[in-house]
Amino acid sequence: MYEKEISLAVIKRLPRYYRYLGELLENDVVRISSKELSEKMQVTASQIRQDLNNFGGFGQQGYGYNVEYLFTEIGKILGLDRKYNVIIIGAGNLGQALANYTDFERRGFLIKGIFDVNPRLEGISIRGNEIRMMETLEDFVKNNSVHIAALTIPKAKAPQVAADLVSWGVKAIWNFAPTDLNLPKDIMVENVHLAESLMRLSYNLKAREEQEREENQ
Amino acid sequence: MYEKEISLAVIKRLPRYYRYLGELLENDVVRISSKELSEKMQVTASQIRQDLNNFGGFGQQGYGYNVEYLFTEIGKILGLDRKYNVIIIGAGNLGQALANYTDFERRGFLIKGIFDVNPRLEGISIRGNEIRMMETLEDFVKNNSVHIAALTIPKAKAPQVAADLVSWGVKAIWNFAPTDLNLPKDIMVENVHLAESLMRLSYNLKAREEQEREENQ
Repeated sequence: MYEKEISLAVIKRLPRYYRYLGELLENDVVRISSKELSEKMQVTASQIRQDLNNFGGFGQQGYGYNVEYLFTEIGKILGLDRKYNVIIIGAGNLGQALANYTDFERRGFLIKGIFDVNPRLEGISIRGNEIRMMETLEDFVKNNSVHIAALTIPKAKAPQVAADLVSWGVKAIWNFAPTDLNLPKDIMVENVHLAESLMRLSYNLKAREEQEREENQ
Repeated sequence: MYEKEISLAVIKRLPRYYRYLGELLENDVVRISSKELSEKMQVTASQIRQDLNNFGGFGQQGYGYNVEYLFTEIGKILGLDRKYNVIIIGAGNLGQALANYTDFERRGFLIKGIFDVNPRLEGISIRGNEIRMMETLEDFVKNNSVHIAALTIPKAKAPQVAADLVSWGVKAIWNFAPTDLNLPKDIMVENVHLAESLMRLSYNLKAREEQEREENQ
């Protein structure tokens, strides 16, 4: 099977291919050459061919790529040919933002529950999901098939909540808390560290300003 | 100057060092060896030494790293020794979540304005910032020093709004819209593509399940 041999860098690029192909589909584009795709995505055509060759190609010499076929196949590789039940822990602004993204549902990620500690939020409905209290989380996870738990809670609480979820059978955590969770190796964790993203921006701003200062000397 | 030669991979790791060192500081840890830091961060000690050597080291043989010094120095490298004026375009859940993060302010990112097209949001105050209408954005940007604009608006609108902001003088965009912005090369863009992050999770879940199936055969 190919999954074990694909480099992390390729895997990181696949969702971007998927997004671009989705946009092409929306614009009724039927086929595209690796050269055109490369100009649109601002990566080299040989990079695109190399990346897609990891999965057996899909391209035809002189024709290019069939957009819908490639979109569907990359979707399968990304595991988007099935449904995922998702719960959100933390119903603050960020948790509510996640619950409100209709895009996720369209891709097969179904929000099945939203949990919070704040009793004032209890029963408030977000796109058909009533916010539940954390005391009911254990029962819910044990009695429902939960594939992914999104954590939008403070960093002090995240490691314990994640450990609990894992002990109740959850296999994948989408972690927005600014801390690493240190879970068993067979648990999938995807971190979204917003502060780190912002720091890369400040680093680049500073580096650019220093470069400009040097050029003006 | 070191900025031009540092690899992107190192730059991507720096905010993580900064976060860990910040946690050590909060716990009153004065010094740490690269071995201890490596166990905590789950990267190799030689990787840590190599990364930090890019910036002239900071470690002392037999003593390890002085946590506060290293934290401060990495902060300077990341451009956190100054203040950044940030505006948020889009006052939905995600925009409000960003406006509510006190962590950002502590690191020097000051929210100076929040903008939306929805008149029902006008004047609502989020941590002292009243939501303003988009018609006032141009004047605001031209009359205030705006370092970073966070875009939490739909993808259909993001490219035009980003182009406008750049034409009015904004140099850095923190983009949450699920699309690439294609701005001039001297504009710093940091993308947070949540759907892509979620797809990496589904990819890994699927790959793990297939691996398990194979092992059980």
